[in-house]
Parts: sequence; structure tokens; C-alpha cells
Amino acid sequence: MPITERLLAFYRPNHYICRTMEPFEIHILGCGSALPTTRHNASAQIIKIGNKQFLIDCGEGTQVQLRKCHIHFSFINHIFISHLHGDHCFGLIGLLSTFGLLGRTAPLHIYADPKLEELMKPQVEFFCKGMNYPLFFHSIDATKHQVIYEDNTVTVESIPLKHRMPCCGFLFREKPKKRHLIGDMANFYNIPAYMRQSIKDGADYTTPDGEIIPNSRLTKEADPSRSYAYCSDTAPCLKNSGILQCVDMLYHESTFAESEKERAAQTFHSTARQAAEIAKSAGVKKLLLGHYSSRYETTDTLLEEAKEIFPNTIAAKEGIIINID
Amino acid sequence: MPITERLLAFYRPNHYICRTMEPFEIHILGCGSALPTTRHNASAQIIKIGNKQFLIDCGEGTQVQLRKCHIHFSFINHIFISHLHGDHCFGLIGLLSTFGLLGRTAPLHIYADPKLEELMKPQVEFFCKGMNYPLFFHSIDATKHQVIYEDNTVTVESIPLKHRMPCCGFLFREKPKKRHLIGDMANFYNIPAYMRQSIKDGADYTTPDGEIIPNSRLTKEADPSRSYAYCSDTAPCLKNSGILQCVDMLYHESTFAESEKERAAQTFHSTARQAAEIAKSAGVKKLLLGHYSSRYETTDTLLEEAKEIFPNTIAAKEGIIINID
Repeated sequence: MPITERLLAFYRPNHYICRTMEPFEIHILGCGSALPTTRHNASAQIIKIGNKQFLIDCGEGTQVQLRKCHIHFSFINHIFISHLHGDHCFGLIGLLSTFGLLGRTAPLHIYADPKLEELMKPQVEFFCKGMNYPLFFHSIDATKHQVIYEDNTVTVESIPLKHRMPCCGFLFREKPKKRHLIGDMANFYNIPAYMRQSIKDGADYTTPDGEIIPNSRLTKEADPSRSYAYCSDTAPCLKNSGILQCVDMLYHESTFAESEKERAAQTFHSTARQAAEIAKSAGVKKLLLGHYSSRYETTDTLLEEAKEIFPNTIAAKEGIIINID
Repeated sequence: MPITERLLAFYRPNHYICRTMEPFEIHILGCGSALPTTRHNASAQIIKIGNKQFLIDCGEGTQVQLRKCHIHFSFINHIFISHLHGDHCFGLIGLLSTFGLLGRTAPLHIYADPKLEELMKPQVEFFCKGMNYPLFFHSIDATKHQVIYEDNTVTVESIPLKHRMPCCGFLFREKPKKRHLIGDMANFYNIPAYMRQSIKDGADYTTPDGEIIPNSRLTKEADPSRSYAYCSDTAPCLKNSGILQCVDMLYHESTFAESEKERAAQTFHSTARQAAEIAKSAGVKKLLLGHYSSRYETTDTLLEEAKEIFPNTIAAKEGIIINID
């Protein structure tokens, strides 16, 4: 086989790795607020990072939304509940029950205020009798900004929010990634497979002749680590907190338009404009509005008011998938 | 005013009363079974009798279905829960919470297995804090056929069913109605308003001159009293019970097609054919199928198999309204 063909054959997978980042997607399952409407579902989102799926909030009807959005139930292993208002958690018992009916055996982890476990346990014992998967509740202290979940590629931090009850947001961050090994260089120097991981981590390569090849000749810049923050429900409390600094995308509740600013303050919610001011001050790349009051037939006003302050704003809608690049 | 005009003026409302029966409608909100699909919602129906609305079962998503079907939440005062499988009651806490948010003050009555009250109470205390309406749980003994609700025009009887847990159906019956007073006769004899109710009840009228006018000259036949039975979930146990005798419409679960007869027996469900056999043996006027397994993409097979035995069968579907005439 001529060199070019060998190189091509080698490049193909490498090319794929170099050019295409793993998915980091936000799937909107519900972005309405407390009162039911035919326009929006109660709060729920799937965060797909690589081959992992995290569920944030689980309002009533979430399991049907998962079906509509073709999300595999069995890939959900971690559920984060922001607070214990019904529109953020009434769909949980249905989902847990369905996991049981579908024969799930993988452990399921729920991160929430400790009161949720107390409320759910009798329900789970009665309605999910005989289910074959272990269920773990992890208690969140909503007053603290801390890492509440961590695996080899992702961390999730709690973001203290200001609502009528303990409530926190969630900040998903990819961990720093490995540098990309340049395929033809690895091939040229015949770098053995067992050494490639350490080179991706930044090590130089010493040839069998003792020549040191600096890492910068062998590798390319790692993909950036992306981040997504979910902040709902809350009064506008994050303007100077620093937690959201340079986040790639911020979902911030925008329950009300500016004309309802007083009502927003009374109920510890935010207006779209206030959400935009937070996005601007934190230097986030993109703002995603949601948690709309049932009084709004469309999101036009909310979007307009936010865009006046922060142009890179979009409005969440059930069924959309937002890629974070 | 000439006689004809007076008669006309009098006839108008009377004509309305004579010719148009009060509504007796079944609104299908959900007719799927345990596993969520995008085709069907979990079990729930509204029974509208006159100006009253009764809710039977309240699967997850019922409150959004109520919105979609333009049912006024405030007219629902009585909720009947057949049994405590999630697809028949997971929507209850959301609905109770929404009643509270909407400022309900009217009492709400829930008729169910006593375990429901035990399971719901901590939830209601936490999620519906500060709600301004009294909530009453009425315990049903699912092993007994008895009247569990009664008002001036309607009775509801429990129907013992055979499922994997205590479960009962509900038989809604209009009470016998008053005869129709013939407007022009009442006018001709100048029957005073205070006597008209007793004449509708069957009394003769004695004129001021002492002449006795027999009731049969003054009134027309009362409207028939209609009935509707809801039987879900159950193995086919009602063939010779007599409870369903001559019911106007029977909703009987038909979770499976005949090819899944064994599975139906194992899970204490019925096939569409078995539902039809019950309808036929009880001499009901119309059969309504529902509670379809998620395995069926359409109801065609179920409907065909039922119609072979009992031709006057229709398949429930979310959003349809069936009038019982």
C-alpha cells in the first residue's frame, strides 16, 4: 500500500476525532411555568454531553416529552431537581415507575433538596414495588456553590438561587480535554500505542535513538471545554456572583415581561430583561430564555426585551435542540 | 297580546326543555395504558351530566388534557379514582396544586381506595400549602357494589373489578326525571307556578271550579334516565354480574388483542373481544374501548375483534366527546 493510502487510512478516524467535537446538546422538553397551558410543558431539559444524558427538572409530562423527543430512557442515570415546586418535579414518580416497567437495572441518581427523598420514598415504595434498579438520592445544599457531581469528563456545580424556597441552578462543565495527537506525526515516528495517551496529556516523545520530539510538534490544541448553566426559578441575583463568568450558554428563567416587573419581584422570579442583564454582566456567550408565565401567548415580547440588552438571546421552545460548539 | 303570541312566548323556553335533553357526555382525556406513548395519554375522562362535571381517573398529564379539551377546572368537584396504579392517578397532585394556584375555594371530593389519602396527604401538605379549598377523601370499598355518590339528579355506583390490586369501576346513572308539563295546557288552565312541580311529579290538577284534569292530559313522558359504566382495569369478570344490565354505554378496558390473550390473563387485563362479549351479554347499547397497550400503533385490530362480537363498538381517542342520548 503506498504511503498516501496508508496515511489516508490512518487519517480517517483521526480526522473524525480532530474535526468533530463530541455533542454538547440541550434538549428542551418543557419551558413553561406553574400553570398548565397547551403551549408549553412544565420544566425539563436533557443535557447530552458525549454519550451521557443528564435530566434537569422533571415537571409533569416529562416522560411523554422524552418519547416525543426520541430520548432513550435507559441513558438517563442522573437527574437534577432545582427545587420542590410541582412544575419542576411532579413528573418524577411517573418516570421512576416507567423505568421499573421497562426493566431498568442500572442505578439511578437523583440530586435534590433532601425533602424530596422524604416525599418520594413512600410513593416509590408503593408505586414502584418490585422494581429492579437501585435508586440513590443525593442531598443538595442549595445555599452553596459546590461540585455536586463529577465523572471523568464532566462536573456539575450547584448555583445558589433566590426563590420562595431552597432552589439552586446547575452549571455543567466539561473537564479540560486532551490535546489531539497529529496522526501523520505519530505514524512518522512510529509512536507505540501505549505512549499515545501520555503524549495527549502533554508529554514529549523520546525516540528509540534518544531524540526528544517536543509535544508541540506531535499534538494540536485540545478542543475547548464547554459549559452550560441552568438557572430557574430565581429572582435576578446572579449579576455580580462570578459563577456564570464566560459560560457558553446560560438558561435563565424569564417568567415575566418588563411590564410585570413588580409581580416578578413579589414571586421571586425574573423578567427577560433582567435575565439579559445577568448574561451581559457575566459575559456569557449565549442566553436561552424560558419558564414563561402562562399569560404570554408568544415569547415575542420577552425575546425583544432581552435582545435590547443582550442580542445573542434565543427563546426556549419544546422540542428544540441547542448545540453548544 | 293575542293568544298565539302569548303561546309562542311561553313555548320558547318550554320548547327548549321539551326537545333538548340535558347533556350526558363522555370526554376522553386519556385512553392509553401504563407505558407512555406519543399516541395516547394516561387514563382520564370527564363525565358531563347536565351542568355537573365528574372526573374519572387522573393519569399524568390530565390537567393539560383538560386545557386542550376546554374543560373548566372550576366545574370539577368530584374525582373518582378506579385504582392506585400510576397511570390512573399520577396526575392528581398536579391538578390539586393547580386548583390551589387558580384560587379555588369550592370543596373537592376524591373517591378512592383509602391508601390514596395516606399517600397524598404529605404531598398535599407540602405542595399545596396555603390552598383555600377543603379537600375530602371518600374511601371506596372496591369489593362492594354500592352507591358511593348521590345528588338530586345522579347516582354513582362502584363496580367490583378483578385486577392486581383493589380496583373498581363506576356506574353513573341519572335519577328518574320529571314528566314534561305541556306548555299550552298549563297556559290554557292557568295552572299557577307553585303547582307545576307537583304536576311534573305526576299529580292531577283541580281547577278553581273543582274539575279534575288528569295528569296524562297535562304532561308528556319524562326523558329517559341515561347511564354510563366505566370499567378499567380488569380481567373479564362482569359477564354474568347483572350490574351492567342495559347500561347505555360501557367503557371497558381492552388493553390487548386476541393474540395477547395469555398476557391479558397474566396481568388481569381484558382483550377487546372479551370486552365485547361482556357488552353483548349485558345488553348494553354501546361499547367504548380503551386502555390500549403501548404495543398497538392503531386501534384497528382491537376494534375489528370487538365488532365481530358486538357491532355497536367504538374506540376511545383523546379529544373525542361521546353523547349519550
